[in-house]
Amino acid sequence: MITTRLTEKFGLKYPIIQAPMAFAAGGKLAAAVSNAGGLGFIGGAYGDANWISEQFEAAGNQNVGCGFITWALKNQPYLLDQVLERKPEALFLSFGNPAPFVDAIKLANVPVICQIQTLRDAKHAIDVGADIIVAQGSEAGGHGEKRATFTLVPEVADYIARNAPDTLLCAAGGIGDGRGLAAALMLGADGVLVGSRFWASDEALVHPKMLQAAIHANGDETLRTTVVDIVRKIDWPDRYNARILKNDFADRWHDDVDGLKTHIDEESEKWCAALDAGDNSIANAFVGEVAGLFHDIKPAAELLDDIVSEAEGLLHIDWL
Amino acid sequence: MITTRLTEKFGLKYPIIQAPMAFAAGGKLAAAVSNAGGLGFIGGAYGDANWISEQFEAAGNQNVGCGFITWALKNQPYLLDQVLERKPEALFLSFGNPAPFVDAIKLANVPVICQIQTLRDAKHAIDVGADIIVAQGSEAGGHGEKRATFTLVPEVADYIARNAPDTLLCAAGGIGDGRGLAAALMLGADGVLVGSRFWASDEALVHPKMLQAAIHANGDETLRTTVVDIVRKIDWPDRYNARILKNDFADRWHDDVDGLKTHIDEESEKWCAALDAGDNSIANAFVGEVAGLFHDIKPAAELLDDIVSEAEGLLHIDWL
Repeated sequence: MITTRLTEKFGLKYPIIQAPMAFAAGGKLAAAVSNAGGLGFIGGAYGDANWISEQFEAAGNQNVGCGFITWALKNQPYLLDQVLERKPEALFLSFGNPAPFVDAIKLANVPVICQIQTLRDAKHAIDVGADIIVAQGSEAGGHGEKRATFTLVPEVADYIARNAPDTLLCAAGGIGDGRGLAAALMLGADGVLVGSRFWASDEALVHPKMLQAAIHANGDETLRTTVVDIVRKIDWPDRYNARILKNDFADRWHDDVDGLKTHIDEESEKWCAALDAGDNSIANAFVGEVAGLFHDIKPAAELLDDIVSEAEGLLHIDWL
Repeated sequence: MITTRLTEKFGLKYPIIQAPMAFAAGGKLAAAVSNAGGLGFIGGAYGDANWISEQFEAAGNQNVGCGFITWALKNQPYLLDQVLERKPEALFLSFGNPAPFVDAIKLANVPVICQIQTLRDAKHAIDVGADIIVAQGSEAGGHGEKRATFTLVPEVADYIARNAPDTLLCAAGGIGDGRGLAAALMLGADGVLVGSRFWASDEALVHPKMLQAAIHANGDETLRTTVVDIVRKIDWPDRYNARILKNDFADRWHDDVDGLKTHIDEESEKWCAALDAGDNSIANAFVGEVAGLFHDIKPAAELLDDIVSEAEGLLHIDWL
């Protein structure tokens, strides 16, 4: 058993949070993770009220949390109340200023988790009252920024130690096995956020063909790019882009964003159809560099066991 | 004492290699590191024969190694023989294809260390006979590429375990304290390469004002860019760029490389003069994100002690 401030705060068996991945993290995955002793999250993402309701139903009123893309939540803040009424285990905010939402979440006695990508944003999230900081490195799948897990985590840990010792810290980006969990603990984290590895689980809402593409990829084959947002016509703030699995589509447009924009309707239709069909040559899998570390699809509960037993093995070694 | 395959191979007290940083890593630093129980390297870099000779003299015939920028060595391969005659502890090659040099180094019974930035390059370096792979993440200072330490190290470790179990592996990029060393061991490394932290040592050849700028910076304030190579008129291969400390010069030109090129002579003269004068508003410090983790300048021997005792403390904790 690895006991940390994170396991103690939520009464978890494992110091592992499952990332609220847009579209992929439905109620089934969130419930599977929470049932098995981690902390599962529904990916509220861009804020589709009906989908979120369905996924809470699918979670069967397990103790799951819900995540939002902060800048998207700003456009429909009423969604926050709808989710808070369900008494989620925690509310997870990433990508944007959490300030407008923190007070309402705390008033509902729900812990606030803020995912940040820079030290600057960590300071701000702590200032506005985040209970838990998730420091996300650039190696992460999906949206993110430039800084790396390996340095961002200890730098935020130092800041927390000096300025807000009661704030918890989790590492995100690049963690998919026990080595990553053990390394994150060494870097000063109280636990980890796992995305891509749960994306490749039995319970995630991902087309089987996309899963196959990801489990056969190595980490060199991922890329941070804006083309997947442009093609989906989602207006992300400039500072963020998304790590995805490279393919013909990304190769074609990554260095010609203006070209993509001039062909947007045609390309968008093709890309979205390919996503539905699981055609990985056109649609992109949203996975991180950690894809190079796993080569199978498993039930979420088994993944949790694997990660933690590998970490326990490493922490048990007599290194000295 | 942390004993690994790296300490055993070279008879080291500490599993720490000092990066052969261009210009900064002279004989004094290399000797200080080797004397104190790590493995010190002279930064042969772009290959200035006289400078390299002087630095070997400055090292006082300690057991130090020498590093080269591989693509630069290709233009003056005779430098390799000159260095091999000095019986270096190891030869360190990074940035380019090591194949043309490995046989000569091995013939001289000198271990070959190849620093790589992708899994693909790791495979190639192993194929051509590297004894030690240094997997360098993007968070590193100076030249590098896109992949992150946190995922590149375990992915290369997996490849080595399956295909070349006698090859050693070190982690580079983001390691400047005991947390980084302990985390690297968890990720599967036999040791670590430390650059920026030794750059900020008493023995490094760096202007004191540049050191002051770096120790007051945080990791958000570094940037990967090509402007420092353009302004120095060094023709680096496209795939590499350099992580440096941001300043007015980088802010001005990073997004306007063509503009910099049209003002190159004027800007180059200014930048180089600023480097000599230690003017950090124009010249850039070549440091990594790890700059956010240290805030002082110390003798190299003390840094080694600090890193290892912090790591030992972490590895001693009863995590379970």
